Amino acid sequence: MEKITQKKWTKKHLLGIEELTGEEILMILDQAKGFKEVLKRAIPKVPTLRGKTIVNLFCEPSTRTRASFELAEKRLSADSLSLSTASSSFVKGETLKDTARNIEAMQIDMIIMRHACAGAPQFLSRCVDAAIINAGDGAHEHPTQALLDAFTIREKRGKIAGLKVSIIGDIAHSRVARSNIWALTKLGADVTVCGPKTLIPAEIEKMGVKVTYDIKKAIKGADVLNVLRIQLERQQKGLFPSIREYVQTFGITKELLDEHAKKDIIIMHPGPINRGVELTKDVADGEYSVILDQVTNGVAIRMAVLYLLSHTKR
Amino acid sequence: MEKITQKKWTKKHLLGIEELTGEEILMILDQAKGFKEVLKRAIPKVPTLRGKTIVNLFCEPSTRTRASFELAEKRLSADSLSLSTASSSFVKGETLKDTARNIEAMQIDMIIMRHACAGAPQFLSRCVDAAIINAGDGAHEHPTQALLDAFTIREKRGKIAGLKVSIIGDIAHSRVARSNIWALTKLGADVTVCGPKTLIPAEIEKMGVKVTYDIKKAIKGADVLNVLRIQLERQQKGLFPSIREYVQTFGITKELLDEHAKKDIIIMHPGPINRGVELTKDVADGEYSVILDQVTNGVAIRMAVLYLLSHTKR
Amino acid sequence: MEKITQKKWTKKHLLGIEELTGEEILMILDQAKGFKEVLKRAIPKVPTLRGKTIVNLFCEPSTRTRASFELAEKRLSADSLSLSTASSSFVKGETLKDTARNIEAMQIDMIIMRHACAGAPQFLSRCVDAAIINAGDGAHEHPTQALLDAFTIREKRGKIAGLKVSIIGDIAHSRVARSNIWALTKLGADVTVCGPKTLIPAEIEKMGVKVTYDIKKAIKGADVLNVLRIQLERQQKGLFPSIREYVQTFGITKELLDEHAKKDIIIMHPGPINRGVELTKDVADGEYSVILDQVTNGVAIRMAVLYLLSHTKR
Repeated sequence: MEKITQKKWTKKHLLGIEELTGEEILMILDQAKGFKEVLKRAIPKVPTLRGKTIVNLFCEPSTRTRASFELAEKRLSADSLSLSTASSSFVKGETLKDTARNIEAMQIDMIIMRHACAGAPQFLSRCVDAAIINAGDGAHEHPTQALLDAFTIREKRGKIAGLKVSIIGDIAHSRVARSNIWALTKLGADVTVCGPKTLIPAEIEKMGVKVTYDIKKAIKGADVLNVLRIQLERQQKGLFPSIREYVQTFGITKELLDEHAKKDIIIMHPGPINRGVELTKDVADGEYSVILDQVTNGVAIRMAVLYLLSHTKR
Repeated sequence: MEKITQKKWTKKHLLGIEELTGEEILMILDQAKGFKEVLKRAIPKVPTLRGKTIVNLFCEPSTRTRASFELAEKRLSADSLSLSTASSSFVKGETLKDTARNIEAMQIDMIIMRHACAGAPQFLSRCVDAAIINAGDGAHEHPTQALLDAFTIREKRGKIAGLKVSIIGDIAHSRVARSNIWALTKLGADVTVCGPKTLIPAEIEKMGVKVTYDIKKAIKGADVLNVLRIQLERQQKGLFPSIREYVQTFGITKELLDEHAKKDIIIMHPGPINRGVELTKDVADGEYSVILDQVTNGVAIRMAVLYLLSHTKR
Repeated sequence: MEKITQKKWTKKHLLGIEELTGEEILMILDQAKGFKEVLKRAIPKVPTLRGKTIVNLFCEPSTRTRASFELAEKRLSADSLSLSTASSSFVKGETLKDTARNIEAMQIDMIIMRHACAGAPQFLSRCVDAAIINAGDGAHEHPTQALLDAFTIREKRGKIAGLKVSIIGDIAHSRVARSNIWALTKLGADVTVCGPKTLIPAEIEKMGVKVTYDIKKAIKGADVLNVLRIQLERQQKGLFPSIREYVQTFGITKELLDEHAKKDIIIMHPGPINRGVELTKDVADGEYSVILDQVTNGVAIRMAVLYLLSHTKR
């Protein structure tokens, strides 16, 4: 375990990547590397957070992220409690505040929160003294996803600075895209976003990224493709004409990669995959894919975040 | 830990406050005081119930009470299992009995039960050998709520006997009111209930309480106001004319308190609060409020109840 | 604990009884006997699976089986995670595969799966490296139920070989019936199935059982009656004319048993019982019934299965 890092960590909450420095991001990645070793042991468990109590407050359906956090908590020996509440019961901020203060009054150390409204975790962090970890808020941020993506890139390519990373899909509605852009640009990667014009925010270049609407340009020269999940329900709102057209224009196929991609490109996807839509089966399961590594690394990243926040020096 | 109490505890179940003596109530409060100290430790956990198995059988939605029990179980190192079953699947008592006997056949020590029907936990206690704790049954009793309320009063005011406590709101449909009346009168408090005439049961005085329909009289001279949650859906049944009228007649405001209340009054509410209905925001968050203390004390009370029942001398 | 057995266990998964030998079934029963002793201890818990991680993936509603597995996991000190996902979200096998591989990527040792589609656990076992335990798949198999039934018979009658066992009810749609037939015939019992003609599969005799449509013949001479749960919703599909007719023709009553059954017959039912339908209240709670023993033994059987699979010699 890299004892050095815990001496320096000062953030109380993890609300987004935007607020972190590149150095802080690297601190989390380093810590996660130590925990990934723990996960390889015969008994992949440490007593690090024994006696700490964590509430998983998921106000939006989630299987994977919740499972990943719950596992991270168990592997750190924390006590945890999972409350699945529909976001709708928190219509008014005041109610959310009351819920949070009630949770905290039960002497909780950390709250992991997923919520349909952007800003909900930030709001929470102003109401309570517990540490708040954003597990996805609206279309705003999903910081642990970006961290596990960065971890996976660094693990596979040895570095992040200077790499060319293309993020493909519905950039406008994606908290994964936003958090990834913050993380990768802070770490010195060269980021391009690519998707239908209707799904690229107007002034996205201000976040320090390039834009292309041509999937071939996005692939060419890229070290990493991060392919976002298409929310099929958006299609009904007329934001893109048809799944078929999307697949033809932006779907990642083995042929596209063989023709245009660098030989050592890695393909990422935050899951769950719509196979045959964002990417074909042979890409998802093929040689370039690191999608399952992302899942494995997610547990290590979440352990690192829980660990660092529980040792915040104030 | 107050070892003396465990020698005397003889009740097998906690079905309601009505069946407890004042001495037994105090025994629970004393035990909870010990556990509140445990909760302040760096590792707020004791091995007291290691190897005991507890089932949380919540047949009505509950976030707070369930979370409080689950935490109490974890802090006592019990193994626990949470089954959320809709009350509707227990329409016939026979089915409830089968469920209970099945649970018990899995060698369960205690069952925490919330159920929409008054009497369901009592019924359960006659079917099985496990200890039953009532976590709220219909409009009948919610004993751990009354115990945490009594604990909070004693903690804040040093005693209960002789205090003037007013309970405000929908008395007729409230298990919290009923359990509080039993607890407070047994402990020698002077209890007044106050609410709309349609929401005060006809012969409530037989429970040993005074009645007033005038909120100012309920406030004047009171040491404690326990303000109940209004079930907004009842309003549609014509039991009170409008929320607006309720607020004007019974809503607790800072102005009302400043004008009529004793300077050291404490304001309680079982939560969740309808802010602006039962009480205003400045009262809920203000100097008189002990609402979050109630939540904190709830965990200690539930630990005490679990502990005492697991050591029943028979 | 019977150390000998763990040296011989070689199966990686428990997908069905069909694939087990009689010797393997007995190995599980012997192991369960040891764990039943553990369950009688003051602290009914062993550190056997400490550090192992188990996912309970229940894609069909289940209270009892899920509770039994969760308890078995806790009593073995495993870490476990429960994911309740509707089967409908796994419409396509590809999605189920992705889910499974994602779960596994989180370094899970075993997956307990219940699914509405026959074969889902088998499919899963081909996608992932984790050990898979079938907790009921469509009308195919429910192996741990058959194992706990066999355990209970052996416990009550000292042996299984040579006993006459009649299985009563909807044989055609019952995974419990199928798994029981495999288990009992492999262990040398003489099995008869009995039910309405529409609910007995055409060539069931090929599984090595006798068929009768006369409940009295099924009872006469039987050492064990295993009475299946009637799925009341099937009745609407016209597979049997009315509940009333079913009860009159196949319902097990005290009178029927007193007149036709051996004095030491045992009555089993996998639960939950439709009292007054499959059997009357006095039979369910009467002297012949071992229904609650089945529930108790279920935890021991599941502990045995988890234990053996976690020690598979490959």
